[in-house]
Amino acid sequence: MTDSQKYRLTIAYEGTRYKGWQRLKQTPETIQGKVESVLSRIFEIPIQIDGASRTDAGVHAKAQVASFSAPIISCEVLSEQLNKYLPKDIAVTSVNIAPTDFHARFKAKHKTYHYVIWRAPYRPIFERNVVTVVDGPLDVGAMRSAAKLLVGKLDFKGFSSDKTKKSTIRTLASIEIMENSETITLIFKGDGFLYNMVRIIVGTLIEVGQGKRTEEDIKETLTSKVRSTAGETAPAEGLTLVEVAYDKLR
Amino acid sequence: MTDSQKYRLTIAYEGTRYKGWQRLKQTPETIQGKVESVLSRIFEIPIQIDGASRTDAGVHAKAQVASFSAPIISCEVLSEQLNKYLPKDIAVTSVNIAPTDFHARFKAKHKTYHYVIWRAPYRPIFERNVVTVVDGPLDVGAMRSAAKLLVGKLDFKGFSSDKTKKSTIRTLASIEIMENSETITLIFKGDGFLYNMVRIIVGTLIEVGQGKRTEEDIKETLTSKVRSTAGETAPAEGLTLVEVAYDKLR
Repeated sequence: MTDSQKYRLTIAYEGTRYKGWQRLKQTPETIQGKVESVLSRIFEIPIQIDGASRTDAGVHAKAQVASFSAPIISCEVLSEQLNKYLPKDIAVTSVNIAPTDFHARFKAKHKTYHYVIWRAPYRPIFERNVVTVVDGPLDVGAMRSAAKLLVGKLDFKGFSSDKTKKSTIRTLASIEIMENSETITLIFKGDGFLYNMVRIIVGTLIEVGQGKRTEEDIKETLTSKVRSTAGETAPAEGLTLVEVAYDKLR
Repeated sequence: MTDSQKYRLTIAYEGTRYKGWQRLKQTPETIQGKVESVLSRIFEIPIQIDGASRTDAGVHAKAQVASFSAPIISCEVLSEQLNKYLPKDIAVTSVNIAPTDFHARFKAKHKTYHYVIWRAPYRPIFERNVVTVVDGPLDVGAMRSAAKLLVGKLDFKGFSSDKTKKSTIRTLASIEIMENSETITLIFKGDGFLYNMVRIIVGTLIEVGQGKRTEEDIKETLTSKVRSTAGETAPAEGLTLVEVAYDKLR
């Protein structure tokens, strides 16, 4: 059998027309499905990849990371071939050789997501596929203050759609909120995120910004761990995975 | 007759699917045509507007400026109505009352255009409608040096598709070139631009960056004033009108 090596891909995609990252039996329209299909064509054997984050339908990525093993070819050629055959809304921005034990998901140390809210009184033009429009004023000070309650090592069960019986404790290193006249960007850094966690936190913070919900309500969700006490799940379109960080590769 | 007043609109649009700014008899698919049609519907009388720049088919704007006279209504209501009825790739970002003698084109003091070249070895994802992809390396230092020859009060006839017999002398205040790993952005500031002038200068500078053309060639075009001695007209998709500046309004 041919010698193989471990590859690490960095992938950018606009998730608008996809059913999310994860491969599905019933449709080829997932990012993982598209990338695997092109890789299998290039290597002429079935290739399966592991992604750092299973982004939902409609969620975007500037730098998703994926790993896989395959026969040895040059990274430059692989990058060229991938970008030649991938659809116009998926690009491989870098291809590297990784240590044999590298795994995009298990080795990830922290991830960064951006959630962009469009708040200008006119609709977004150039940004229209990657922001969520929220009408009416938002009290960003109140959102910032409430966000502080969610930073740290906490049980985020109430802020998740996860049905798992595994641990729902995660460490959110920071939630930063930046604003300009058109947008409010919430930046989440953490070691791991439960299913829908960022979107439920954003939906909850939006309701805080609208004066519909208080810091007490957030404390209540953290204590009760009951999903229905938190806010609505914010739409997928405003969410983008922007970074996956690893320990320095040997 | 109802009292009327002068309005000033700032308009953002992605020009991809339009035949340019200027109203055409043969198609409603122009930015001016779309805005006039919505204004005429709001005011229930035919409204014609003047735009600061007649952007070409496929060219974008972050802040085109237009002026017109119409009956008195509140700017807030007008903004709301315009954004309600305009298509999803055109937005009015501000509506103001202007002095009676204000004219978006004649009163403009200078305009700023950005031309964005995509140079990464993978295709653009989020930026794909607003950049021009150029394959292969570009010598940005050579482009910067050549651009200096085009700054100042010069006869740009050779860098224009204008068939006019009017003066082709314009003042280019500056050409700045910014770069990062994915893009090269050329920023043009000037008091006025001839037809296709920015795109022909960009096309010429790209050829300088590719080593196909020298500073001597640019001097030759400035002297001979012959269009065919300059480079190709760069594609419309990378060009965006980003600012129109006026003397302080009284």
